[in-house]
Amino acid sequence: MLENYRILLGSQSPRRQELLKGLDIPFEVVTAEVEECYPDSLKGADIPLFLAKQKADALRLNMERNTLLITADTIVWLDGKVYGKPADMDEAREMLHQLSGKTHKVITGVVVTTADRQESFSASTLVTFTELSDNEIDCYLKRYHPADKAGSYGVQEWIGYIGVERIEGSYYNVMGLPVQRLYQLLKTFG
Amino acid sequence: MLENYRILLGSQSPRRQELLKGLDIPFEVVTAEVEECYPDSLKGADIPLFLAKQKADALRLNMERNTLLITADTIVWLDGKVYGKPADMDEAREMLHQLSGKTHKVITGVVVTTADRQESFSASTLVTFTELSDNEIDCYLKRYHPADKAGSYGVQEWIGYIGVERIEGSYYNVMGLPVQRLYQLLKTFG
Repeated sequence: MLENYRILLGSQSPRRQELLKGLDIPFEVVTAEVEECYPDSLKGADIPLFLAKQKADALRLNMERNTLLITADTIVWLDGKVYGKPADMDEAREMLHQLSGKTHKVITGVVVTTADRQESFSASTLVTFTELSDNEIDCYLKRYHPADKAGSYGVQEWIGYIGVERIEGSYYNVMGLPVQRLYQLLKTFG
Repeated sequence: MLENYRILLGSQSPRRQELLKGLDIPFEVVTAEVEECYPDSLKGADIPLFLAKQKADALRLNMERNTLLITADTIVWLDGKVYGKPADMDEAREMLHQLSGKTHKVITGVVVTTADRQESFSASTLVTFTELSDNEIDCYLKRYHPADKAGSYGVQEWIGYIGVERIEGSYYNVMGLPVQRLYQLLKTFG
């Protein structure tokens, strides 16, 4: 449906690459070094949208005319606070203790950019964790290394299997890319 | 946590086997031929619970004392009607047309059986499909062969990526095994 475009995914995340593959659309991966900084005034969905646009800006400079670029950013949002990637094991442990027994929001901002058009949207999913024991948290952190994951967990990993009671919204959004809404948006470029 | 048990999964479903692996508990697969028949009087969750118990009954006969058997059955429930595995391509197409643009319920019945104890529960997840085009349905049926799937779709396949707008409940339940609740139940056998 997008035969006229060379499609680029601007993300180093193996989960995003895997998810985009699931849409059966051929694409290449490109990456840019972008500092994940944003104004303090931003809240909730505005944060990942801002960061996804920053990534698009860094990558669109050298884009050829027939290129379509997809960028995205995902955050965990709980009690008015952002949980990003943990700096170290202690911060990861602290984040998982915060998420334990509560419902948080996972928000992904997605930006699709061509030479003459830019569209964006954000998707939110509610995720409810059961009470996690200290042992379960430590066991997860030792065996998996969620250093590259917002909120210090991968829903598709052991902690998601044993700990996530329910979600409301898109599961793939929790993994890092809301593919159903992305597909609907890509159709409009077709 | 279940070191004293030899754990058996009574299911031929590759998805269930993969999901149970995700709990990091060693197990073996056993299967029994069970006709998936149930009394007409049963509705909703009672159907997969009945079928999961039937599977347990067929397999528990030769069980040794230290064995723990897990059986499960999954149905799709929409407008008071069960959608099971499709008999052929035409029925699969018809099912997907029925599910398109609507919210249905996926219900899994799970039974855990040891020599002197049997526990069961059912888990329900609401799944909302966007409007699927004839082309999308045909494309999916040609490339994937959902003959072994209740409701004629795999949420983890292309049709789930492009078509599922949102879910409410456990994603893994939609794949065939509500692993978080199963893990909580298994803990009580520990």
